[in-house]
Amino acid sequence: MSEAARRIEYALSERFGERFAVDDKLPGLDELARVSARRVCRRYQKRAVAPELLRLLCACALSAPSKSDLQQVDILIVRDNVKRDAIADLLPAMPWAREAPVFLVFLANGRRVPQVAALRGKPFPNDHLDLFFNATVDAAIVLATFLRAAEAVGLGCCPISVIRDHAAVIGELLALPEKVVPVAGLCVGWPAEEGAISPRLSLSTTLHEDRFAEGDLAGEIEAYDRRRAATRPYRSQRDVARFDRAKFYGWSEDKARQYAVPMRADFGAFVRGKGFHLD
Amino acid sequence: MSEAARRIEYALSERFGERFAVDDKLPGLDELARVSARRVCRRYQKRAVAPELLRLLCACALSAPSKSDLQQVDILIVRDNVKRDAIADLLPAMPWAREAPVFLVFLANGRRVPQVAALRGKPFPNDHLDLFFNATVDAAIVLATFLRAAEAVGLGCCPISVIRDHAAVIGELLALPEKVVPVAGLCVGWPAEEGAISPRLSLSTTLHEDRFAEGDLAGEIEAYDRRRAATRPYRSQRDVARFDRAKFYGWSEDKARQYAVPMRADFGAFVRGKGFHLD
Repeated sequence: MSEAARRIEYALSERFGERFAVDDKLPGLDELARVSARRVCRRYQKRAVAPELLRLLCACALSAPSKSDLQQVDILIVRDNVKRDAIADLLPAMPWAREAPVFLVFLANGRRVPQVAALRGKPFPNDHLDLFFNATVDAAIVLATFLRAAEAVGLGCCPISVIRDHAAVIGELLALPEKVVPVAGLCVGWPAEEGAISPRLSLSTTLHEDRFAEGDLAGEIEAYDRRRAATRPYRSQRDVARFDRAKFYGWSEDKARQYAVPMRADFGAFVRGKGFHLD
Repeated sequence: MSEAARRIEYALSERFGERFAVDDKLPGLDELARVSARRVCRRYQKRAVAPELLRLLCACALSAPSKSDLQQVDILIVRDNVKRDAIADLLPAMPWAREAPVFLVFLANGRRVPQVAALRGKPFPNDHLDLFFNATVDAAIVLATFLRAAEAVGLGCCPISVIRDHAAVIGELLALPEKVVPVAGLCVGWPAEEGAISPRLSLSTTLHEDRFAEGDLAGEIEAYDRRRAATRPYRSQRDVARFDRAKFYGWSEDKARQYAVPMRADFGAFVRGKGFHLD
């Protein structure tokens, strides 16, 4: 078996707890190995990412498919140190946001299509949820395509969705106009650590055929909690003062605790304040 | 210069009307060549995609990063011919939706996290726009990651966002429960055509530094319309009865006409009907 096929089998077995037989004759195994072994990277070498390389990767990312060819996404490179620091100050639990050589923000742009309509003297009767949705999806697809290009050349990345916890401040800092909102930030740099493969819910939970079927979700989640704890146990428990110390602390307990406090409750107000209608 | 570097330079020049100098010594040039030359594929060979390969690609796709590790996305494979036909019947302008060997639907799942909270006996005070947004972004990232894996092995794809024009029918057909909505469909198959590189707005429009800056948007769009018309002129004009025949018919005119009629105005009602709160 080829080295790449072996890496894919290992990664997917770590990821899903399932054995995949990988056909050695498939083309593209190197890329499948990168995708399947995808690791978040939060520690970077003190080595710059050349501006020309970054521009090339952004061009690759913006080559992604776009809903109805509407191109409702922008990428913003934060270079200015004062702005970098101001963003990092908002994220004290994430020192990598300060240390990463590159910090990008992926923007949903619901502004350009109505602008195009106005430039062409046409009405735009589509200022409802669809506009926000399409721009958001486009931005997420471009973010994932940036990851694809960056990982191909050997860079490591860490998405920072938590910038939306501070959407108004970020919006002001980056001069985001009406109908432009941040979807996520992204730290990029040359990896200084390999990172770990994050186990995922089994495909019997997330992959469906012909109809959505939940099956025994409680059992599936319990099995996932156990499988995950065997290789990636949590090192600490959240919010012990409120919930006590759990004897067994798995993924479901961690996520339930994490979302037991209100988060981004003001995000809807921010989006509406930016002029999006979510009807 | 290597063959891959040459392909990247050609693709990005077609795409953005800009010359990129590609460093021949970069690793991953084959992958950058695939990303930069990304083409939609709407015609497929009459050759099946093996179920084991499809499962492998879905596993690769679900290895994508996930917001807060919440895993709010599902993939649904539509195999049943009656359902395939029912979906194809909704999309008469897209015969490839009927002909593609594989049809997938990527689902935003805002259901699992509240279920996890209930299973762990925790409150869930986050049933607002954030829940819908996170699940949607996760689904879009997994869709883009599926493309990445599929293109690596030589498959061609065509995203079908227009299934959302029929969200309620699709929802019923696929038995989507409360808080699960379709983000996009995807046709997949072995390509029977090469497809064309779709030109994109120049990077001076979509790539920003430190602050969002629109510059001369009208001039940029005019230049893009002309650049695009030189290689990919529209073969027909939309809605001539309403808007007359344009002497020059570019991207902006086409998009303005396309969105001059209400579309998916009921999508917000569908999403709310599925139990999402968009506050």
